[in-house]
Amino acid sequence: MPEQTIDDLSRRLGEFARVRDWEQFHSPKNLAMALAGEAGELLEHFQWLTQQQSANLQPEKKEAVALEMADILIYLLRLSERLEVDIVDMAYRKMAINESRYPAERVKGDARRADEYD
Amino acid sequence: MPEQTIDDLSRRLGEFARVRDWEQFHSPKNLAMALAGEAGELLEHFQWLTQQQSANLQPEKKEAVALEMADILIYLLRLSERLEVDIVDMAYRKMAINESRYPAERVKGDARRADEYD
Amino acid sequence: MPEQTIDDLSRRLGEFARVRDWEQFHSPKNLAMALAGEAGELLEHFQWLTQQQSANLQPEKKEAVALEMADILIYLLRLSERLEVDIVDMAYRKMAINESRYPAERVKGDARRADEYD
Amino acid sequence: MPEQTIDDLSRRLGEFARVRDWEQFHSPKNLAMALAGEAGELLEHFQWLTQQQSANLQPEKKEAVALEMADILIYLLRLSERLEVDIVDMAYRKMAINESRYPAERVKGDARRADEYD
Repeated sequence: MPEQTIDDLSRRLGEFARVRDWEQFHSPKNLAMALAGEAGELLEHFQWLTQQQSANLQPEKKEAVALEMADILIYLLRLSERLEVDIVDMAYRKMAINESRYPAERVKGDARRADEYD
Repeated sequence: MPEQTIDDLSRRLGEFARVRDWEQFHSPKNLAMALAGEAGELLEHFQWLTQQQSANLQPEKKEAVALEMADILIYLLRLSERLEVDIVDMAYRKMAINESRYPAERVKGDARRADEYD
Repeated sequence: MPEQTIDDLSRRLGEFARVRDWEQFHSPKNLAMALAGEAGELLEHFQWLTQQQSANLQPEKKEAVALEMADILIYLLRLSERLEVDIVDMAYRKMAINESRYPAERVKGDARRADEYD
Repeated sequence: MPEQTIDDLSRRLGEFARVRDWEQFHSPKNLAMALAGEAGELLEHFQWLTQQQSANLQPEKKEAVALEMADILIYLLRLSERLEVDIVDMAYRKMAINESRYPAERVKGDARRADEYD
């Protein structure tokens, strides 16, 4: 079995779409909608839980949540392929931006949004 | 420089939160909200575009879209850590489920949702 | 000044779009995306708050939240017009469905989703 | 039968929650999540449709879409009650803001976002 990597996963998702002739539906616009739809399903699992409950899910619920998360990753990788974005590299770049935007000593323990500072 | 992998990225995101004392805010419930909020921002980039336009973004727009996508991956990895979910493995499992749910010969060129079949 | 009603508001929103030649962008698909984008912005205001904090917003924050809520209503009314849906009547119908689906004596104090009941 | 108005609907939704002892779950934070979850379900109905298809829904599909829209209005009204926001008045105010932000002669036929002008 090939190693489970993001690149291998992405290739196999592309193949999955191609053999079903589904690439015609996978415009970036449509994939962004599908991703946001899955994010909405993720929310529904958590909407009536306390924060503490959300950190202590029953196994069956946790499995359902993990499958929604998988759907989100799947659409994110499809979108990355369509737009030719290296998503892991972008996440490293975004983390570097966040590090300079939120210096640890300045924001420690404070969750206000960046545009609420100053 | 260490290789850019999902695991390394996830570790560094955890460290980023810890040194800012932000883990107190990162309940699964809150992270699901943050992820969905970023998915909403992604939508806004595409909402008035045709599907064709969405596949031909100008460089500046594409960069902005890619940064939103990075935010989604970041929150997805944070959520995976909090719930102790192996997100890449889950995506492989979900792809296998989709392969049996949507046999290629049956769904070719047809994008109806699974629950609209039969 | 005319009375502020949903019908009057909806008419004026239609006029607003027409004089800007924006109806070409207001397909139901696009309006659903715009609505979900605004729902994402709403989430961002609440994502790091405790439930108690979310019920005690500072005036400036509350104003910002109320404007996001207004955007959601605006897109919901635009979508209703495009699909020729009487949204207030539909909400009464949905409430009636919910009343039979969740009898008060059965679900009192229990927020599980309908599909989690047997 | 009482006239179907937003105010009457809002009162009845409040009563619906109270007799089920569900107000404990209806913090603004949770209601914002529920609203966004319904917006995600709305998206799923449209994600693989062309814009033209989205304007020509089959009756069964249109009914399902209208019920999602009703859910969104329901949560929006619940949230308005909890935050003591007059949502119809806010929508009029937001429309006035949009009228000054997007003068008809300047933006005619152009759907770029406000922050992309100038």
